[in-house]
Amino acid sequence: MSLSIVILAAGKGTRMRSDLPKVLQPLAHKPLLGYVIDASMSFKPRELVVVYGYGGDLVKKTFPSPDIQWVEQKEQLGTGHALQQAFPLINDRGNTLILYGDVPLIDQKTIERLIIKGQKNLAVLTYLKEDPKGYGRIVRKDGRIQKIVEEKDCDESQKNIKEINTGIMCAPNHLLKNWLTRLTNKNAQKEYYLTDIVGLSIEDNIEVLSESADNEESITGINSKYELATMERNYQLMTAKTLMEQGVTIIDPSRIDIRGEVTAGQDVTIDVGCIFEGKVVLGSHVKVAAYSHIKDSIIGDHSSIEPYSHIVESKVGNHCRIGPFARLRPGTQLQNHVHIGNFVEIKNSEVNDHTNINHLSYVGDSLVGKSVNIGAGTITCNYDGANKHPTTIEDDVFIGSNTALVAPVKIGKGATIAAGSTITKDAPPGDLTVSRGKQTSISGWKKPTKK
Amino acid sequence: MSLSIVILAAGKGTRMRSDLPKVLQPLAHKPLLGYVIDASMSFKPRELVVVYGYGGDLVKKTFPSPDIQWVEQKEQLGTGHALQQAFPLINDRGNTLILYGDVPLIDQKTIERLIIKGQKNLAVLTYLKEDPKGYGRIVRKDGRIQKIVEEKDCDESQKNIKEINTGIMCAPNHLLKNWLTRLTNKNAQKEYYLTDIVGLSIEDNIEVLSESADNEESITGINSKYELATMERNYQLMTAKTLMEQGVTIIDPSRIDIRGEVTAGQDVTIDVGCIFEGKVVLGSHVKVAAYSHIKDSIIGDHSSIEPYSHIVESKVGNHCRIGPFARLRPGTQLQNHVHIGNFVEIKNSEVNDHTNINHLSYVGDSLVGKSVNIGAGTITCNYDGANKHPTTIEDDVFIGSNTALVAPVKIGKGATIAAGSTITKDAPPGDLTVSRGKQTSISGWKKPTKK
Amino acid sequence: MSLSIVILAAGKGTRMRSDLPKVLQPLAHKPLLGYVIDASMSFKPRELVVVYGYGGDLVKKTFPSPDIQWVEQKEQLGTGHALQQAFPLINDRGNTLILYGDVPLIDQKTIERLIIKGQKNLAVLTYLKEDPKGYGRIVRKDGRIQKIVEEKDCDESQKNIKEINTGIMCAPNHLLKNWLTRLTNKNAQKEYYLTDIVGLSIEDNIEVLSESADNEESITGINSKYELATMERNYQLMTAKTLMEQGVTIIDPSRIDIRGEVTAGQDVTIDVGCIFEGKVVLGSHVKVAAYSHIKDSIIGDHSSIEPYSHIVESKVGNHCRIGPFARLRPGTQLQNHVHIGNFVEIKNSEVNDHTNINHLSYVGDSLVGKSVNIGAGTITCNYDGANKHPTTIEDDVFIGSNTALVAPVKIGKGATIAAGSTITKDAPPGDLTVSRGKQTSISGWKKPTKK
Repeated sequence: MSLSIVILAAGKGTRMRSDLPKVLQPLAHKPLLGYVIDASMSFKPRELVVVYGYGGDLVKKTFPSPDIQWVEQKEQLGTGHALQQAFPLINDRGNTLILYGDVPLIDQKTIERLIIKGQKNLAVLTYLKEDPKGYGRIVRKDGRIQKIVEEKDCDESQKNIKEINTGIMCAPNHLLKNWLTRLTNKNAQKEYYLTDIVGLSIEDNIEVLSESADNEESITGINSKYELATMERNYQLMTAKTLMEQGVTIIDPSRIDIRGEVTAGQDVTIDVGCIFEGKVVLGSHVKVAAYSHIKDSIIGDHSSIEPYSHIVESKVGNHCRIGPFARLRPGTQLQNHVHIGNFVEIKNSEVNDHTNINHLSYVGDSLVGKSVNIGAGTITCNYDGANKHPTTIEDDVFIGSNTALVAPVKIGKGATIAAGSTITKDAPPGDLTVSRGKQTSISGWKKPTKK
Repeated sequence: MSLSIVILAAGKGTRMRSDLPKVLQPLAHKPLLGYVIDASMSFKPRELVVVYGYGGDLVKKTFPSPDIQWVEQKEQLGTGHALQQAFPLINDRGNTLILYGDVPLIDQKTIERLIIKGQKNLAVLTYLKEDPKGYGRIVRKDGRIQKIVEEKDCDESQKNIKEINTGIMCAPNHLLKNWLTRLTNKNAQKEYYLTDIVGLSIEDNIEVLSESADNEESITGINSKYELATMERNYQLMTAKTLMEQGVTIIDPSRIDIRGEVTAGQDVTIDVGCIFEGKVVLGSHVKVAAYSHIKDSIIGDHSSIEPYSHIVESKVGNHCRIGPFARLRPGTQLQNHVHIGNFVEIKNSEVNDHTNINHLSYVGDSLVGKSVNIGAGTITCNYDGANKHPTTIEDDVFIGSNTALVAPVKIGKGATIAAGSTITKDAPPGDLTVSRGKQTSISGWKKPTKK
Repeated sequence: MSLSIVILAAGKGTRMRSDLPKVLQPLAHKPLLGYVIDASMSFKPRELVVVYGYGGDLVKKTFPSPDIQWVEQKEQLGTGHALQQAFPLINDRGNTLILYGDVPLIDQKTIERLIIKGQKNLAVLTYLKEDPKGYGRIVRKDGRIQKIVEEKDCDESQKNIKEINTGIMCAPNHLLKNWLTRLTNKNAQKEYYLTDIVGLSIEDNIEVLSESADNEESITGINSKYELATMERNYQLMTAKTLMEQGVTIIDPSRIDIRGEVTAGQDVTIDVGCIFEGKVVLGSHVKVAAYSHIKDSIIGDHSSIEPYSHIVESKVGNHCRIGPFARLRPGTQLQNHVHIGNFVEIKNSEVNDHTNINHLSYVGDSLVGKSVNIGAGTITCNYDGANKHPTTIEDDVFIGSNTALVAPVKIGKGATIAAGSTITKDAPPGDLTVSRGKQTSISGWKKPTKK
């Protein structure tokens, strides 16, 4: 049987107080609507229609998938009206699942069960909420749903009902089409409420079925920055738990932020306060120390990331040691047994096995060989104010401290560069190359005095 | 009607185990008593009297306002005795509000209502506490307060009373004066209890009124470092929520610390672990990345503060990018589109539009023009061991890497400084200026061997 | 009376999904089993027997104490079988306490009471658990223990029993020996359950006594990484509370990590996110700012550690200021009033009173005198590619910025080194020493253009 999905995503989200439409507010760096679209895709719908409104162009541009059909709700006349806008795009056969752009953490299994129940009947997703205040209540008689009563219309006994309406529902298209034409806006808000189809179904003597959500996160909508932050922590905790179940040691799951996807090998340890973004692959026995940021990078087996390391679009080999206070910028490729130390920045460079760059250096646009030692305060001068130039440092080179390598330049295999040199021409292999003023002392020097 | 306020602030706070008097212990970098004084000021009292005791000189010096009158309680003979010390300073007309130096998070609206009730009667602030253990209970008959019974004197049924005495009260001055003379210390502790005036009021057939506090924080006192830390988090959460209601995206409200006042424009995002101190102004669309510290600074619109940035008494213009690992020290003024990169320290310097200082540099006491590029490892040598000297770098200058600029020195407009130079004299505009040894290579160089 | 202790530590801990045996999983950097062994030692047992299984060699190697006897449980045939392996090593006289290698946070006082009760009887440690699901229930009649019923065997009324079996028990050796021979594996798992001795004791008409644990942590076992992380936070909170009771101000006890032992003087403040490892001693009035790491170090009175400082095996004197972004590596010894600033690394060096190393420097293997000023960008070139060499900087020296000191080298008392110098020979005291190219300007210089 064919499934259509309509995502209602037209709300402005005034309480967010943001120029960004509510459904684009990020949860773990991904827009709320992105979660709903991704979950929808997993159900392989025949049609996926998103009803947008506020900030629509930006919303559409954010999700350029050709599989999505977009319908604008020009006036905010209620959820029933929103669905009405979508229905011209929906085939008469099959059934339609209705989701919300601000309810991101959809539980796939529950929805699958709901879809099955919504093949011949209206099926609504409900939830047993300890504190149901503010939600529409599910009123049942002999176990069957009779109606949904909004909080403000509840009598005292209805207020005690803990089964609430989540708004998520599924029903056959031909029924939905009929019900949508029968909705009215004869209410205080003068809006067309989608919930009213429950009454229409009962009016038509078609039983309203229900499915119950297992966890509150999966049915929770976001209306404020505080609710967004609360869901962010719930989501992060879920993500952390998944990694821990795979064996990752996370020292404090309330202090880790995964904004993307982390894959980890055997016996990985992640200390407090680390942030992962994009796609991060951690090999086996990797240790990530506190307050490190890693984005779109691969860290090899047995490598150790020391505290306050900042790694973006880089590849770190096996048995490397990075940091503390190291920054690997995009295009960094470290082979194995490489050490990058404190206050060192590497950019767009390949560094080969057993090379050490331990202190206060900048290596950019460079190819660095094996077993090279780069002294403290070494700078590859890769930029002449207009263009970037490459530096080549061959195997077994020793670069003395406080050295400037003015690119393009090549330091030959086994060469030694004397400390404090500025190297502007290629240095021959094996030789000691030096560029330095003569040391002289001036006696009788009178120190400056405090003015 | 005229209001007097007496703040009881004489306690040592033994459980704090600190040399600092309890009322000076900081909550979000402000002494506890400071909150009570500020809240008191907002009620515009005729007299504001602080009863101090332990560490009094330090307490007085911390709050040099001429609007505060200080009275010493030389012996610790109870809260009633403390108020007796204050009363000679209080005019007979009007009423007096009694607050406590260790109950900082006063709820202004509740107190306003209490003050009104305390115009002709004794009005006590109570609170319905889920777990009332340890507190004095409010005993009522037919809804009227009959007495306050301390925990240790409660019978079994009184122990179940959840309405507790907060100690905060308000009453007409002429009644208070009379009651204070009638207090006795005939009790186990031999102290004069302020609470006893409740009994005296009833004895005098003057009804004791009450006002109920809305939230527990507002009536909670601090007696230990753990309670202080707990209140700190409550306070921080309140502060974070206020910012979020204004539209600021705070990724994790349990990991932000605001010790002062943050003002934020539209669509500001603050990542985890940031610390704000003093007065911080964030423009619209500012992003503050994780683990940044910002103190007494202004960040312009669309600027981005990358992780681990440390910014104090600085002004950052629009569209700037700071960090990661950048430090802006006092007196830094960045205009627009300025980039300050990793391991860079700026102090007491002005940096103009479109200038980049991206790596491993120290720029101090400098005026840097527009569209300047300062290479990695550049140091302004502003200190000669006795005095600080200025560096001037005019527009469109290119400073090669690993350069020392020995101040006072001026680099003329459009000049280029060759990498590795030490510049001690002014560099002419437009020219290439270089100071460098000649590069030579010594063949047959024998590398040192491991001894 | 003589006490024996048997620690059951043979489990693999499959749910940990780790190559490391469960009992070696670290809690605050110490293996779980280490807590149980240390607690056991405090009871001064005659014998301490650890029953190991999975990963045994590694377990034994981790605890090389001669006071521990090790017994292997070659097959995993249940807790009763595990204890049977240990008993040949236990003297007939006295009683035996049975602990678990994965229940680390033992409460000493409770166990002391249990040991006393276990002198003539079987004494079991129980706990009143709000949600007892999953645990064996203590079934009593007229207050006396009748049996322990596992969750799966509980009838409805037994399921409501909240008193659970912790597994920790103590009994006279002669009784245990007898009971152990009577255990059978006639159950679904075909395992020998230690719990069955409760039934044997009752069969023998020997009353089963009990002791009740005060807190849940003390009886909680660890079976997954998530449980480990949860216990880590409980443990950290306990540790933080202990420091706070001593008067330390910890800004947020949920964001501090103490993996070892911190000793603190009067009025110490520790800001958010700090990590302490090994033995750390903080003097009086020390301030540790946010996100600092300190390991095996001593910080003197009135010293201030600024944010993001990383300090290992170092000694910092009084009135020092370290950081932000400073790294003190092993062997750093700072005397009093020393300032180490941003992006500075110190290693294996002594720095004397009133010396400043404020910016972007590397000082290694050095002896630095008093009142020395080391300019920004100073590097001690201590490594020649094969060996490390010392640098000596005497009192009152001024090192200009961007200077390389090529070790071995000595800078005489009161000497001045000109900025940008590379010093390869000793600098005479008092003199100005310089090594620098001549500054020349080339007019008509044509800047590179973007290709």
